[in-house]
Amino acid sequence: MSMEPTLRPPANEGLIAALANALGDRFSRARAVCEQHGRDESYHPTIPPDGVAFARSTEDVAAIVALCAQHRVPVIPFGTGTSLEGGVAALAGGISIDLAGMNRVLRVSADDLDVTVQAGVTRKQLNTHLRDTGLFFPIDPGADASLGGMAATRASGTNAVRYGTMRDNVLGLTAVLADGSIVRTGTRARKSAAGYDLTRLLVGSEGTLGVITELTLRLHGIPEAMSSAVCAFPTVADAVNAVIATIQVGVPVARIEFLDDVQIDAVNRFSKLDYAVAPTLFFEFHGTEASVAEQAEMAGMIAGEHGASDFRWATLAEDRNRLWQARHDAYYAALALRPGARGLPTDVCVPISRLADCIVETKADVAESRLLAPMVGHVGDGNFHLVFVLDLDDAEEVARAETLHERLVRRALAMGGTCTGEHGIGYGKKHLLEAECGPAIDVMRTIKRALDPHGILNPGKVV
Amino acid sequence: MSMEPTLRPPANEGLIAALANALGDRFSRARAVCEQHGRDESYHPTIPPDGVAFARSTEDVAAIVALCAQHRVPVIPFGTGTSLEGGVAALAGGISIDLAGMNRVLRVSADDLDVTVQAGVTRKQLNTHLRDTGLFFPIDPGADASLGGMAATRASGTNAVRYGTMRDNVLGLTAVLADGSIVRTGTRARKSAAGYDLTRLLVGSEGTLGVITELTLRLHGIPEAMSSAVCAFPTVADAVNAVIATIQVGVPVARIEFLDDVQIDAVNRFSKLDYAVAPTLFFEFHGTEASVAEQAEMAGMIAGEHGASDFRWATLAEDRNRLWQARHDAYYAALALRPGARGLPTDVCVPISRLADCIVETKADVAESRLLAPMVGHVGDGNFHLVFVLDLDDAEEVARAETLHERLVRRALAMGGTCTGEHGIGYGKKHLLEAECGPAIDVMRTIKRALDPHGILNPGKVV
Repeated sequence: MSMEPTLRPPANEGLIAALANALGDRFSRARAVCEQHGRDESYHPTIPPDGVAFARSTEDVAAIVALCAQHRVPVIPFGTGTSLEGGVAALAGGISIDLAGMNRVLRVSADDLDVTVQAGVTRKQLNTHLRDTGLFFPIDPGADASLGGMAATRASGTNAVRYGTMRDNVLGLTAVLADGSIVRTGTRARKSAAGYDLTRLLVGSEGTLGVITELTLRLHGIPEAMSSAVCAFPTVADAVNAVIATIQVGVPVARIEFLDDVQIDAVNRFSKLDYAVAPTLFFEFHGTEASVAEQAEMAGMIAGEHGASDFRWATLAEDRNRLWQARHDAYYAALALRPGARGLPTDVCVPISRLADCIVETKADVAESRLLAPMVGHVGDGNFHLVFVLDLDDAEEVARAETLHERLVRRALAMGGTCTGEHGIGYGKKHLLEAECGPAIDVMRTIKRALDPHGILNPGKVV
Repeated sequence: MSMEPTLRPPANEGLIAALANALGDRFSRARAVCEQHGRDESYHPTIPPDGVAFARSTEDVAAIVALCAQHRVPVIPFGTGTSLEGGVAALAGGISIDLAGMNRVLRVSADDLDVTVQAGVTRKQLNTHLRDTGLFFPIDPGADASLGGMAATRASGTNAVRYGTMRDNVLGLTAVLADGSIVRTGTRARKSAAGYDLTRLLVGSEGTLGVITELTLRLHGIPEAMSSAVCAFPTVADAVNAVIATIQVGVPVARIEFLDDVQIDAVNRFSKLDYAVAPTLFFEFHGTEASVAEQAEMAGMIAGEHGASDFRWATLAEDRNRLWQARHDAYYAALALRPGARGLPTDVCVPISRLADCIVETKADVAESRLLAPMVGHVGDGNFHLVFVLDLDDAEEVARAETLHERLVRRALAMGGTCTGEHGIGYGKKHLLEAECGPAIDVMRTIKRALDPHGILNPGKVV
């Protein structure tokens, strides 16, 4: 959690003039604009860029990056600013490229179940656009993030257990490289053995290897039938063991989410619900009517064997939507428990056989620490989140949270897991990435140096 | 299809002595051994290495690569020699590293549905090993290839439409880099947002970025019920349109394979079967009893609407196995149509909406050419194969096949597809990769130069 030194070169007047000239009022150095582009939704401090360039097209981005490259000034891509590891912080100054204006859906093919979008399209905007096609895009981080940002951080969400993550759902990309050149990766084919997988290299690279400007994404047919359920368990271990059994027996759940008692209490308050304040699972099943009924029966049976009670079913779309909106608002619900507080959110992912141990040990740590830290997880993948809800002015409290955070991640690594399932590295987890990777971190650094020799692409992040 | 110049440096006596000293009788320069390691299953000519080193461990491979790096001599990884684009040819001489002796299954976790294997374990060996666990590994290229080779070529096969390709089923790797150092990529977590996706970079890199020595793979539960069917169609277009409709409507088929009349005739002869000699689909459905019945009914209805007849069902394991072994032997069956002939196999993959056009136009080309070229395809993915069965002594015939091949690939690219769905690039398709990638090929070359500055890893392949 150590802070990077923030070496701020003096603003480069030649570059500033060139950007202003090229972009007119789509380039801003206003303090409020710069500050807004230097912070995300986490506890990391605001580190504003020297200016913000609002792009409308891939060619805009290419021109901006080319100018910055010429002046050796950093560029930091910005989508919706909903990252959680300081990904948008201008650690070494430079120009933020705001892609929110690149919000056009360029092409939908219902026959091929794919779509091409500009990077600033958000996940909700895309699904609204798809409304009449019978198709949907399943990846759903809590925030209504931009699809470019979601690709850059290899985001996932509640549906990943069934539909995969951004890694699995990006068919190809357009990106601007460190010299301002434009490349396209991948094709519209479903699979390929043609050369290095540049698409997967850029997905998860957090703007450090290129600026993603367009994406071709897989879509999925809206299932004939969907059904959701919520149920409470006597203990955390019971809930998690029910998940493990459900996955191991092969029930193809679309969603299986864990919320601990603290988080359920937060959700009840924030979303005006009245779930039992206990370790809880949210399920969703997708398929034909018959298959959904069969899945629900199997999962219900397993949950029952682990002591589940207070089963509530939601088959109507509006009830399901309310349930999942509450789940997506979990982070904001956690923050609302303590007005004025900021979140130190973290996530790890472990092999599912270790999930109960990892969660139980972490809950014990939290209990002992007297910190406020709700837990929520995409547990079908072995992925869970802890949000420390902190008073940032209380250095001792922050330090206690950081110690626990470090213990949690190192526990996950020792169990064969990863330091982040879906939040990314940013600069908050760089030392933990090193701990996870061993010598492979040098391979990442070699790639970074080769593709961005002057280090202008989102410097200080990931590697 | 142009040949690379085969620059053969004189064998390096210092290196030869060092390898002989390090490996004893696990290093061979026997002509027959070198020739066997310089050819694959395609029509590409044998280009033997200067010696073959038989590895038993990752440390062996690291020692061999370190010695070769010191002497700037190429290393070419060798699994089962079943590649199809000349991947094992020693274009610039050097040392073949035979990994077949690295054939241990190191760890199986039934709870986590994963396994760690040495790179020389073959797909059939793995599934035999898993026999009593209730799990299986689904990726099945025609040959009983090594899992390291399958990862290196990003292989897939008949189950990819349901279970994905090697891209989706490799959780992590151990690889030896160009300097002989050992890296581990990935973890046992199901998903991760931690840093660059080195696993996906190495999968499909065909030994040009590192030598894969161990793999952690996803496993899948053997479904409660399975059912297969074969049916014939009046025309190629009818068969392909039935596939497209089945995929678009969302039937979660496990396998959906197309064989044209020429290929069915070959399969009948080779595997002593008596299918109608007509455009044919092989289906397989996996799930619960109820779900399999439902899938079979939907697919059967769609097939019927497209004129399917002569439906034959196989629910017994031995009948299904016979069916799929016949399908896996399709390449060998094609070659057997013309004794003494060699195969020029190729594969492309297109968006599924273009599949019927691509196949029908290609069949028309083949008919006009009077070449023998059975067609077979993993059509659920939009992927199909054509095998030109050639007399390599007839230069005019070979040239005609190469012209048609080129037309096929360029047609697929124009349709938004890829020059290879699963065979890889080797050196046979390098110019087609360039045509597919545009400027992105330079990114691949930059990565290659950064990770293998002296160009010793399988030189002349991919980029």
